[in-house]
Amino acid sequence: MRQVNGNFYHKSIISVDQFSKKDIDVIFKRAASYRDALKRGDVLDDLRGKLVTALFYEPSSRTFGSFIAATQRLGGGFIPIQGVQFSSVVKGETLEDTIRVFSNYSDAIALRHPEEGAAKTAAAVSPVPVINAGDGTGEHPTQALLDLFTIREGLGGIEGLVIAMMGDLKYGRTVHSLAKLLSLYKKIRLVFVCPSESPMPAPIVALLHKRGVKTSTASSLADIIRDVDVLYLTRVQKERMPKDVYEKIKGRFILTGALAKKMKKSAIIMHPLPRVGEITPDVDENPRAVYFSDQMRNGMYVRMALLKLVLKK
Amino acid sequence: MRQVNGNFYHKSIISVDQFSKKDIDVIFKRAASYRDALKRGDVLDDLRGKLVTALFYEPSSRTFGSFIAATQRLGGGFIPIQGVQFSSVVKGETLEDTIRVFSNYSDAIALRHPEEGAAKTAAAVSPVPVINAGDGTGEHPTQALLDLFTIREGLGGIEGLVIAMMGDLKYGRTVHSLAKLLSLYKKIRLVFVCPSESPMPAPIVALLHKRGVKTSTASSLADIIRDVDVLYLTRVQKERMPKDVYEKIKGRFILTGALAKKMKKSAIIMHPLPRVGEITPDVDENPRAVYFSDQMRNGMYVRMALLKLVLKK
Amino acid sequence: MRQVNGNFYHKSIISVDQFSKKDIDVIFKRAASYRDALKRGDVLDDLRGKLVTALFYEPSSRTFGSFIAATQRLGGGFIPIQGVQFSSVVKGETLEDTIRVFSNYSDAIALRHPEEGAAKTAAAVSPVPVINAGDGTGEHPTQALLDLFTIREGLGGIEGLVIAMMGDLKYGRTVHSLAKLLSLYKKIRLVFVCPSESPMPAPIVALLHKRGVKTSTASSLADIIRDVDVLYLTRVQKERMPKDVYEKIKGRFILTGALAKKMKKSAIIMHPLPRVGEITPDVDENPRAVYFSDQMRNGMYVRMALLKLVLKK
Repeated sequence: MRQVNGNFYHKSIISVDQFSKKDIDVIFKRAASYRDALKRGDVLDDLRGKLVTALFYEPSSRTFGSFIAATQRLGGGFIPIQGVQFSSVVKGETLEDTIRVFSNYSDAIALRHPEEGAAKTAAAVSPVPVINAGDGTGEHPTQALLDLFTIREGLGGIEGLVIAMMGDLKYGRTVHSLAKLLSLYKKIRLVFVCPSESPMPAPIVALLHKRGVKTSTASSLADIIRDVDVLYLTRVQKERMPKDVYEKIKGRFILTGALAKKMKKSAIIMHPLPRVGEITPDVDENPRAVYFSDQMRNGMYVRMALLKLVLKK
Repeated sequence: MRQVNGNFYHKSIISVDQFSKKDIDVIFKRAASYRDALKRGDVLDDLRGKLVTALFYEPSSRTFGSFIAATQRLGGGFIPIQGVQFSSVVKGETLEDTIRVFSNYSDAIALRHPEEGAAKTAAAVSPVPVINAGDGTGEHPTQALLDLFTIREGLGGIEGLVIAMMGDLKYGRTVHSLAKLLSLYKKIRLVFVCPSESPMPAPIVALLHKRGVKTSTASSLADIIRDVDVLYLTRVQKERMPKDVYEKIKGRFILTGALAKKMKKSAIIMHPLPRVGEITPDVDENPRAVYFSDQMRNGMYVRMALLKLVLKK
Repeated sequence: MRQVNGNFYHKSIISVDQFSKKDIDVIFKRAASYRDALKRGDVLDDLRGKLVTALFYEPSSRTFGSFIAATQRLGGGFIPIQGVQFSSVVKGETLEDTIRVFSNYSDAIALRHPEEGAAKTAAAVSPVPVINAGDGTGEHPTQALLDLFTIREGLGGIEGLVIAMMGDLKYGRTVHSLAKLLSLYKKIRLVFVCPSESPMPAPIVALLHKRGVKTSTASSLADIIRDVDVLYLTRVQKERMPKDVYEKIKGRFILTGALAKKMKKSAIIMHPLPRVGEITPDVDENPRAVYFSDQMRNGMYVRMALLKLVLKK
């Protein structure tokens, strides 16, 4: 896994660990410029003549749609390969061989795969850039980037913020990657709001501390709702705990409209989606809620930026 | 559900009830002009820089293909989301949330859904236009428009025509929507050719009468074949009646080559497809048959027109 | 099935039997020119304003991706219809009717179907060109063309070559079509390396002999490895023979890195993919191996050439 070090061209994007703060600035500057251009109604063609394969071994209509949209917003074409399990793979082809095939047809591959490490395996054999679109409990770097971009744009900066992360922090790759990215910035305070069954993993907490991030834990949203600049919600994985335990605790991890009103005026509410009950519908109208608007759109802008950077000098 | 009233821009298209005769004229003028342009070999780019999501909760390769083709014939891009049941929806996401997501990626959403009312629900939360591509036993407005356009182009006008509708008139959304559109025109006579188990619903008949449409019923194609200007065939739903009843009556609702020859010279034969036996293959060569030619192509032209009208001022 | 006879425009491509040597020269000249243009970074638009339906009744992500890529590399649009079994076909529509529908939306149809003869059936009713993308145990003409193009480009010509074909030669449509194409050239020697259960069918061997091709048979790769210019590997179909037989013989039909090193310096190793064990991974680094590089890319170039030739005068 090669560090980006200021040069994205023809590199695979596997993990947030590849980025320095400077690299992130480059992506965000480009993403913001694409956003402004689209808002002006510009028609862009930075990827004219380029093709991107969306190779999805598991369904994810959201991420699939975002990559497809990003490619076409820049004038590029796409090869949609979904449900790969029903095709060659049935005949026993390895991931590596499938990657080798599509690298001949397209200029980049956005790969979604259920197994951790799949993107790294793919990148190792691919002559064209592989962009990790989520590999199991592993990484989902474009999600982490769009989340960070949303925080920066929503609050005018990243340093000094208090960010609460709620839900299944043990298996949630989204919060792991985002926490690592945040640790590149100064004076960050993270609050983990989670059942005791689903804590943020110790190695990540250790890394955060080493980089100067202050962390704390809360067992209820209500306890911390007034203090945070960013409330990042994810699902509580009820399938990972005994039913009676889940029933007892679930109320502590639901954001209601009433609770949301107690937040700072400047705060924002984020969620990687889909939500399944941890945000009640009356929160949607709260001006702090960005999960259906800026956060989604920023995913497209950040992916546009990454595709441009790896595909064009 | 907002009436179009001469201004399509940024409106959702949910039902034929939104259109006045004047609105229909606008759509048809545009559709005819696109048809002529494509026949001349023009390359069009009215939707350059625009993206349309084809969000199909149930399969319909015909309607899906028609929307995809319409978008690209105008230079636009598309996001194909099919079999949504295998993706986010598995994780429990509501239709409303899925619509909110894709409204951030694309400029319009063509929605196919198995439940009546789904398009209206979607439009209520969508910041971009939703075009109903069929919602269960509800509406399928683009089908009704393409049918009406085919009648107008095939017969040189709509007023004064005798139109027979055959098949399952009780549950067939296609014939319901088309009948309502036809009722906007003068001196229309509708003949319902159907098993007594599947009549045109009383509320629709009442509406037709109120608007001055004359209706009658026949229990066999042979009885009315000589009199009609348009023969609009749909499937007889054998699963909705006892097997012995079906076997006894089915012959009355099959158009054969011999029967088709008895029609008026100027008449046209239509079917929304797929057919499954109600038109024998020897009818295909009859010059009155337009179901595999004009009717199909008109679907693309009408969808091109609608997409242009809702997406561009 | 019409012979091409120097004029591809608006013809369906069903079988390699439609091509003369001169026709093949036309395709290959065009394919080579597209390859060179793409290598230079040119953006092509020979199919601007054209649409191709990829109508796949059975999954084949490789062939699907190649056609989609070829279309877009030339600036054309596409209609992706996969898993047709879940859609109209469920409702009982015939192949012919489905073809008639999509011929109204698009300018050509690339058809993949599990049944032999499907492409011919489709072409007979289609007003637009149908390109056979594989029909069961029938034909797969674009595969045969890309294979022949790969041989010509890899060895500088076709006449006088010794070509070994390995695997299931009885049911393998790929090797049947390729053998027929090769028989158009002079002084070809074919070596069939296969279990006695899966011989090249007698009618094809008879045709080859009639056209002056010399053939021989070997029961092990090791026996012929030093003599061949082209080693064309396919799968040994273990499901077609008793398990104990398969276990006994399988080693004779596996190409290992050590064996590959014994080949002529100028030889090339080909495989239509996916491989499932008949080529060990250490062969991939052998410079003679072209199955993951030239052979794949040539598929795209040859399909670009064919689409251009049938769609534009």
